[in-house]
Amino acid sequence: MPCGHDGAVDSPIPRGPVDATAVPRFAGPPTFARLPRLGEVSRADVAVVGLPFDAGTSYRPGARFGPAHIRASSKLLRPYHPALATSPFAAMQVADAGDLGLNPFDIPEALRSCELGMRSLAQDGATLVGLGGDHTLALPALRALHALHGPVAVLHFDAHLDTWDTYMGAAYTHGTPFRRASEEGLIDRERSVHVGIRGPLYGAGDLDDDTRLGFAVVPADDYESDGVARIVDRVRHRLGGPGAGPVYVSVDIDVLDPAAAPGTGTPEAGGLTSRELLHTLRGLAPAAPGEPGIDVVGVDVVEVAPAYDHAEITGIAAAHVVYDLLGVLALSGRRA
Amino acid sequence: MPCGHDGAVDSPIPRGPVDATAVPRFAGPPTFARLPRLGEVSRADVAVVGLPFDAGTSYRPGARFGPAHIRASSKLLRPYHPALATSPFAAMQVADAGDLGLNPFDIPEALRSCELGMRSLAQDGATLVGLGGDHTLALPALRALHALHGPVAVLHFDAHLDTWDTYMGAAYTHGTPFRRASEEGLIDRERSVHVGIRGPLYGAGDLDDDTRLGFAVVPADDYESDGVARIVDRVRHRLGGPGAGPVYVSVDIDVLDPAAAPGTGTPEAGGLTSRELLHTLRGLAPAAPGEPGIDVVGVDVVEVAPAYDHAEITGIAAAHVVYDLLGVLALSGRRA
Amino acid sequence: MPCGHDGAVDSPIPRGPVDATAVPRFAGPPTFARLPRLGEVSRADVAVVGLPFDAGTSYRPGARFGPAHIRASSKLLRPYHPALATSPFAAMQVADAGDLGLNPFDIPEALRSCELGMRSLAQDGATLVGLGGDHTLALPALRALHALHGPVAVLHFDAHLDTWDTYMGAAYTHGTPFRRASEEGLIDRERSVHVGIRGPLYGAGDLDDDTRLGFAVVPADDYESDGVARIVDRVRHRLGGPGAGPVYVSVDIDVLDPAAAPGTGTPEAGGLTSRELLHTLRGLAPAAPGEPGIDVVGVDVVEVAPAYDHAEITGIAAAHVVYDLLGVLALSGRRA
Amino acid sequence: MPCGHDGAVDSPIPRGPVDATAVPRFAGPPTFARLPRLGEVSRADVAVVGLPFDAGTSYRPGARFGPAHIRASSKLLRPYHPALATSPFAAMQVADAGDLGLNPFDIPEALRSCELGMRSLAQDGATLVGLGGDHTLALPALRALHALHGPVAVLHFDAHLDTWDTYMGAAYTHGTPFRRASEEGLIDRERSVHVGIRGPLYGAGDLDDDTRLGFAVVPADDYESDGVARIVDRVRHRLGGPGAGPVYVSVDIDVLDPAAAPGTGTPEAGGLTSRELLHTLRGLAPAAPGEPGIDVVGVDVVEVAPAYDHAEITGIAAAHVVYDLLGVLALSGRRA
Amino acid sequence: MPCGHDGAVDSPIPRGPVDATAVPRFAGPPTFARLPRLGEVSRADVAVVGLPFDAGTSYRPGARFGPAHIRASSKLLRPYHPALATSPFAAMQVADAGDLGLNPFDIPEALRSCELGMRSLAQDGATLVGLGGDHTLALPALRALHALHGPVAVLHFDAHLDTWDTYMGAAYTHGTPFRRASEEGLIDRERSVHVGIRGPLYGAGDLDDDTRLGFAVVPADDYESDGVARIVDRVRHRLGGPGAGPVYVSVDIDVLDPAAAPGTGTPEAGGLTSRELLHTLRGLAPAAPGEPGIDVVGVDVVEVAPAYDHAEITGIAAAHVVYDLLGVLALSGRRA
Amino acid sequence: MPCGHDGAVDSPIPRGPVDATAVPRFAGPPTFARLPRLGEVSRADVAVVGLPFDAGTSYRPGARFGPAHIRASSKLLRPYHPALATSPFAAMQVADAGDLGLNPFDIPEALRSCELGMRSLAQDGATLVGLGGDHTLALPALRALHALHGPVAVLHFDAHLDTWDTYMGAAYTHGTPFRRASEEGLIDRERSVHVGIRGPLYGAGDLDDDTRLGFAVVPADDYESDGVARIVDRVRHRLGGPGAGPVYVSVDIDVLDPAAAPGTGTPEAGGLTSRELLHTLRGLAPAAPGEPGIDVVGVDVVEVAPAYDHAEITGIAAAHVVYDLLGVLALSGRRA
Repeated sequence: MPCGHDGAVDSPIPRGPVDATAVPRFAGPPTFARLPRLGEVSRADVAVVGLPFDAGTSYRPGARFGPAHIRASSKLLRPYHPALATSPFAAMQVADAGDLGLNPFDIPEALRSCELGMRSLAQDGATLVGLGGDHTLALPALRALHALHGPVAVLHFDAHLDTWDTYMGAAYTHGTPFRRASEEGLIDRERSVHVGIRGPLYGAGDLDDDTRLGFAVVPADDYESDGVARIVDRVRHRLGGPGAGPVYVSVDIDVLDPAAAPGTGTPEAGGLTSRELLHTLRGLAPAAPGEPGIDVVGVDVVEVAPAYDHAEITGIAAAHVVYDLLGVLALSGRRA
Repeated sequence: MPCGHDGAVDSPIPRGPVDATAVPRFAGPPTFARLPRLGEVSRADVAVVGLPFDAGTSYRPGARFGPAHIRASSKLLRPYHPALATSPFAAMQVADAGDLGLNPFDIPEALRSCELGMRSLAQDGATLVGLGGDHTLALPALRALHALHGPVAVLHFDAHLDTWDTYMGAAYTHGTPFRRASEEGLIDRERSVHVGIRGPLYGAGDLDDDTRLGFAVVPADDYESDGVARIVDRVRHRLGGPGAGPVYVSVDIDVLDPAAAPGTGTPEAGGLTSRELLHTLRGLAPAAPGEPGIDVVGVDVVEVAPAYDHAEITGIAAAHVVYDLLGVLALSGRRA
Repeated sequence: MPCGHDGAVDSPIPRGPVDATAVPRFAGPPTFARLPRLGEVSRADVAVVGLPFDAGTSYRPGARFGPAHIRASSKLLRPYHPALATSPFAAMQVADAGDLGLNPFDIPEALRSCELGMRSLAQDGATLVGLGGDHTLALPALRALHALHGPVAVLHFDAHLDTWDTYMGAAYTHGTPFRRASEEGLIDRERSVHVGIRGPLYGAGDLDDDTRLGFAVVPADDYESDGVARIVDRVRHRLGGPGAGPVYVSVDIDVLDPAAAPGTGTPEAGGLTSRELLHTLRGLAPAAPGEPGIDVVGVDVVEVAPAYDHAEITGIAAAHVVYDLLGVLALSGRRA
Repeated sequence: MPCGHDGAVDSPIPRGPVDATAVPRFAGPPTFARLPRLGEVSRADVAVVGLPFDAGTSYRPGARFGPAHIRASSKLLRPYHPALATSPFAAMQVADAGDLGLNPFDIPEALRSCELGMRSLAQDGATLVGLGGDHTLALPALRALHALHGPVAVLHFDAHLDTWDTYMGAAYTHGTPFRRASEEGLIDRERSVHVGIRGPLYGAGDLDDDTRLGFAVVPADDYESDGVARIVDRVRHRLGGPGAGPVYVSVDIDVLDPAAAPGTGTPEAGGLTSRELLHTLRGLAPAAPGEPGIDVVGVDVVEVAPAYDHAEITGIAAAHVVYDLLGVLALSGRRA
Repeated sequence: MPCGHDGAVDSPIPRGPVDATAVPRFAGPPTFARLPRLGEVSRADVAVVGLPFDAGTSYRPGARFGPAHIRASSKLLRPYHPALATSPFAAMQVADAGDLGLNPFDIPEALRSCELGMRSLAQDGATLVGLGGDHTLALPALRALHALHGPVAVLHFDAHLDTWDTYMGAAYTHGTPFRRASEEGLIDRERSVHVGIRGPLYGAGDLDDDTRLGFAVVPADDYESDGVARIVDRVRHRLGGPGAGPVYVSVDIDVLDPAAAPGTGTPEAGGLTSRELLHTLRGLAPAAPGEPGIDVVGVDVVEVAPAYDHAEITGIAAAHVVYDLLGVLALSGRRA
Repeated sequence: MPCGHDGAVDSPIPRGPVDATAVPRFAGPPTFARLPRLGEVSRADVAVVGLPFDAGTSYRPGARFGPAHIRASSKLLRPYHPALATSPFAAMQVADAGDLGLNPFDIPEALRSCELGMRSLAQDGATLVGLGGDHTLALPALRALHALHGPVAVLHFDAHLDTWDTYMGAAYTHGTPFRRASEEGLIDRERSVHVGIRGPLYGAGDLDDDTRLGFAVVPADDYESDGVARIVDRVRHRLGGPGAGPVYVSVDIDVLDPAAAPGTGTPEAGGLTSRELLHTLRGLAPAAPGEPGIDVVGVDVVEVAPAYDHAEITGIAAAHVVYDLLGVLALSGRRA
């Protein structure tokens, strides 16, 4: 009954969102941005995949419902990105791969299933965009990417370092993925960086460990004093610019201020506005059309906990984060 | 990735909900009860179809988001109905047909699209379960059923009569579907009945008109004085019992008390509990196994307005209403 | 601009709600039930008056916003009461007198202002319906009524006795109005009764004091075992029936279960449904048309705290309580 | 009972808000800022009018309850505006004209009623401040103003262009008013400007059309890079400054970030803070006392959807928008 | 600073709630019912202990915040229980033992810690009242009780059987405690009973298994047809009456209808009202003063998930459940 | 059962938060930051004390529940403050003193109790951090401090001046504490300053009075034009720098924008972000380690009204305000 995908009039394979002039935006398929399901298309340049899991959460749980919430909050996304002057869904076949089935009672098994699922989805060359779910899942994502790309730089937006060692004896939680990844040699220790860090730590040693594990830090405070443009410069410099190697972009939605992202598990005051975050992300795009861009090989948006959201404030921010990163991908040239 | 539908192990055609031991209930396909999509199955005995439309609403709008909300609230439904001793999804192929695309700016056009869509879905013999959306859509549903069955008895659960004539000059709103249907000869005027009526009216004449249009009334008050069992008897008597002819069951969720269904557009104090409503619905099942049941030929559950719901109280009630009516259908023997 | 009051077509003095066929129910004057303001009519049989005050509250405050909330929740009230077969706004001129200005920082002054304001409004014979506000205000209401009627029976719906002596040294709070009223000789100690009492007390002596102060008790529990009809009989018997003397009906919305009235200050589990409450109130109407009714000389609905309400569940219940009591008044014959 | 309007002690005609020392701010008349009703004053310099209508809404409905919500959220507004050093209610007679009755089932009829109502209110020279309601209503407002002033410049704050052509075949929706207005010759194509635009479009052609229809664009992004002061300069330059002609200020509350305005129908991440919006609006005031100001001839604040608001965040922002524009009007000298 | 416990004027060891005439109910110690902490008293007859854990949850998580929420919702509890005519805090020393520290990342370790913690608390003879937390924790509670009492009858209030075998391979989740307990010989298979069961199951075999594991079933539906009094008789008969042996009372708050308990993880429509639940619980008290009562040796109230609660509806119900069971304990004579 | 305070392994006196590796952050003692209770430690350098009182509130009440809410929102605070490079709980013994019992029905009595309670707590040299409660309580706090320190400079963050004279005849409300304090000679009129002022006033005279009473003003608007660093300079200049005398820091949470602090009683649009506020507060720390800091002798954080908060946005901001001020105290050297 629902028919027609935007910009897909004469094609048997759907592409882009369902036509909003035939099916109102509040209706239609509950995929991300009302895009085709992966099963409907022959192959995809980008696959959006839900990671409904929160057993690694140390405070407020609920990110298991995050993927469905981000999808529901993405219905208003339209085809053309004016700030980046690109139409991501026309430039790339973007499809929704549904959810991975992850065991909520067994973290190690869930990590294995997640890695296997991501490898399977990526084997045809699709760039994966993970919708979390909690941050534990960045580890299997990096394991899957390492198999394809070797060590990747991690561009990590978060209030927290997520390089803690253990928590109540547990090595695999949402506070530890980047320590494990660094220990396993999955990340490029010269080019990784946290953006938006703030709030109290356990001790001064947390920062020393973090440096040793391969991360630079751009605190949230620097947005107040420096502004977005200078932070983009610092981030691009740390990443090494186009050609320096693959980059994984991991966005913990708690990088935003609680006012802009109440629906998350470990909120910290003093965070970014959604405008600051989106501007920073757009800073990854090529400086000019045709120039090479940052080589983004994987993306996640995690820690959206809908039970604490209101009026989809958090969900909409997460959906826009994905959309802006799709714009960056569309301009940067990698295709499946 | 999500794989396996309960009870569908050795079949290439999925049937029943996705296997909850492979994909946790909070994940997986966002269809009603995590059932197969209509496109995945060859044909269906019952098709659940979303009717995202609320342009006929006179007070609180928002039922346009009702279908997605009822689906999200239906994920906990399991395969076996102990009170009715039946497994509806095993007894019948039940599939989710997605949403109809209905024009929010043009009520007459939306009525036409709705009727056409329903006729198309019903042409292979599927019994339709409409997820509203507002009550305006009972009219096109009855038009579609009339083409197949002739006049049908309407078993209508609601706080309101919905047999008003016009509202601000408009003939087609959520307050008028059953007057229009009666005028058009779509309903059986000897066997139709409202259950749960309460709250103030415009005048005593409203009830006279309603009687003339073919409806008996069971007020909500009678649940206080008579109890469910006696009301079931009265309803079955009015419907004429098995063999008396086809019945359309239309459940406006505002038949429930605002405590049990805050997420609706025109709430009235003094309503039913969800237990009373479900027990009344189960009263439509055959008195004993093998005996004939009420011949339910169509169902809707309407007026779920999620912006006013809390913690899916209303959505869960609506999902259970559908589930119990599926149980009645499974026992009553009609198959596509 | 908004024009036309229902049933007021050829009259220069408006009467009844604004015509819903000219101004949709979600719009128009923010008076109770969209009725005329008192200043628009020559005189009123019933005056609805807001009592925005909560300085006497011992737990959750916020009832100061109750009057506006009840009015906003009353917009759906229509002219005809089918269960009582009467049109209250046609039978009586009912007008909204706005809010009394009560000092939130000085309880004694607020009591004086409230009493004066109520006397002033009642001097032309109008029956007053107070929209609270906290229960402290039942005391000045009873003082005002005593000046007109002498001692009145109090029919008090509440989870709590409200006959405590002092609280932290304060004699005038929402827990003490009926002790003060009894001490001041304002109430008929032979005919007063609490309905819906439940939850823990300070000690067994609370009940002894209460009896001595002139109240019988119908616990909420009796609704479970006895049902509404028998409770109505007990209430009418205690009130002495028609002709036995004037009655003040005071409804603390926390008589309802927290599910049915979350928006209140001192909720207690195990309460009434709105259907039970409304049925009990309707039990005050004359047994048959033309027979004398209970002589209700004043009404309040108090303790609605909107910050804790959801989707107007509590507000709608309160508005229906007022509407049903207006139906009782319309049938009982007292006119200004 | 409620008595005394601030600064109106010795006048028979009320002026300004009800005296807060007599009636607490949480009580009293439910007019905007507790101002007099239009019927209470002989004539008004500014009339605030509710436009409860949302049938033109393409996503989340509910703006039909916007006028009541903005009024409820305006109770804290006090008489003196320190940032502009003016007392708007003393400088001008500002009155609340209540709501227009607009048909929710018939968009063209609602447009006609709205235009007629606004013409009627404006005929005595009052400047109108419309409280929406959805943005569809900017069209009848501009039609009414055109009859008085000829083409006006539109200063439009919004996340969206609102110059789309049709939506599902409908020419008159909340996404099309400024295209229709431009086509009808109602606006000054040399001086109109959108401020706060962001989020995805249907295509690059949307911007070309928009330019052709007479609008310049100040994207939300420019607040990040340029700051408020430079944006004010650009806006004033586009408007042509004092003497250049009449200006209509239309504020879609979704120009704010979802964090600052969750209660709206089509939210987009990356928006303005309320501080940025208010500072931009104050930039319309005369540069110095006695100098001429921008000639604002009409105002609307639209798309406030209370069901999605929390704790009046959105309503308070809308009320402050109105208050700051009243301050601009007070300083700019136009009087009825 | 906070001083004085009700009824503890001349005692150095505090007993009962903090004196509400010295410290208002909205203030003071955040213990259950503002009771003394266990560390403040020499020993306790009853210890209330928080079990903040939800790693065994299959759907909505969040019960880890349940203990704090129930405590916050218990502040209004007063000393005297009029329906049972007892003062539980005077009859018994009831103290709050704080929370057990349970590992959220390792279910087996959490079960061990919970069992050890409970044994430690019970070793001086205190009866334990566990505030959940999810239902997984009933298993370690029963293990701890078995060490003291041998097999106990389980009186289990729930929408669900909680006798499933595994879920996604996990043997220890909130859906399996009573199967494990039965397998381990912890329960009396002749005297255990579920009350309030409803909603769909996986298959008819679920009920067969359940019977074999030692449970009788009182479905929620029977409250509609039979009423509370008859259900109390059935429950007492199944438990064997006073002297038949020890009883563990386990109350999953989802036994209540979603209207009465939205704040829970796996809600099912058609549940009990809080009044029905409280009346059933009170049915455990001795039939007359001095007669022996049911020998309750342990209590839990679980599955309160505050993120889904509203206005403490669910929390208050849970607090009253505890209070009524304390009343039963006080009358039944067991003391530490 | 809960055991171990961070950094307190070999000490009999607990210090700092409970060890998060033994008791998860969502569990454990409900003290501020899970710190020891005052009764558990011999003496404290800083005592955090709850002031549950809101009888001085002129608009939305509910700050009486503020202390419990701030404590619940403080559980995520960890021991090390990276931006200030200090561990406040290691540098100082910080303990939670519980709540003062303040009479909600008698403002003067509550002021007396509050002053006495604060004097008692401060007598051993502890610096007090008050958790409000409404702003009325700044007056008794200043009275208590005056007895120890003589006149103190007030650094006051607020949307409002709080130097009004009376409100409805009441001299002691949340709008008047600083006028009373100035009149009583409690404050240093040369060094006091408001930060964040915005929104409408009663008249231009309000500002004149305020200046006369000894306050400079930094409007919220200046954050837009000047940025945080320059505002810190102005504040430090006004305070006179280190050595100039004692400073009381009073933070009304409504200094934040409603988006960042919805949970408050008199919200005004156009406020600060939490990042701006926290940066300003950190500006009070010594310019370099070892240099003298501002001599902060007392702190309050007031006007947190949880019924209007969402997902602890406001509570978390308040908890971080306290934490950052503890960091300032730790660096500035004053010890008990």
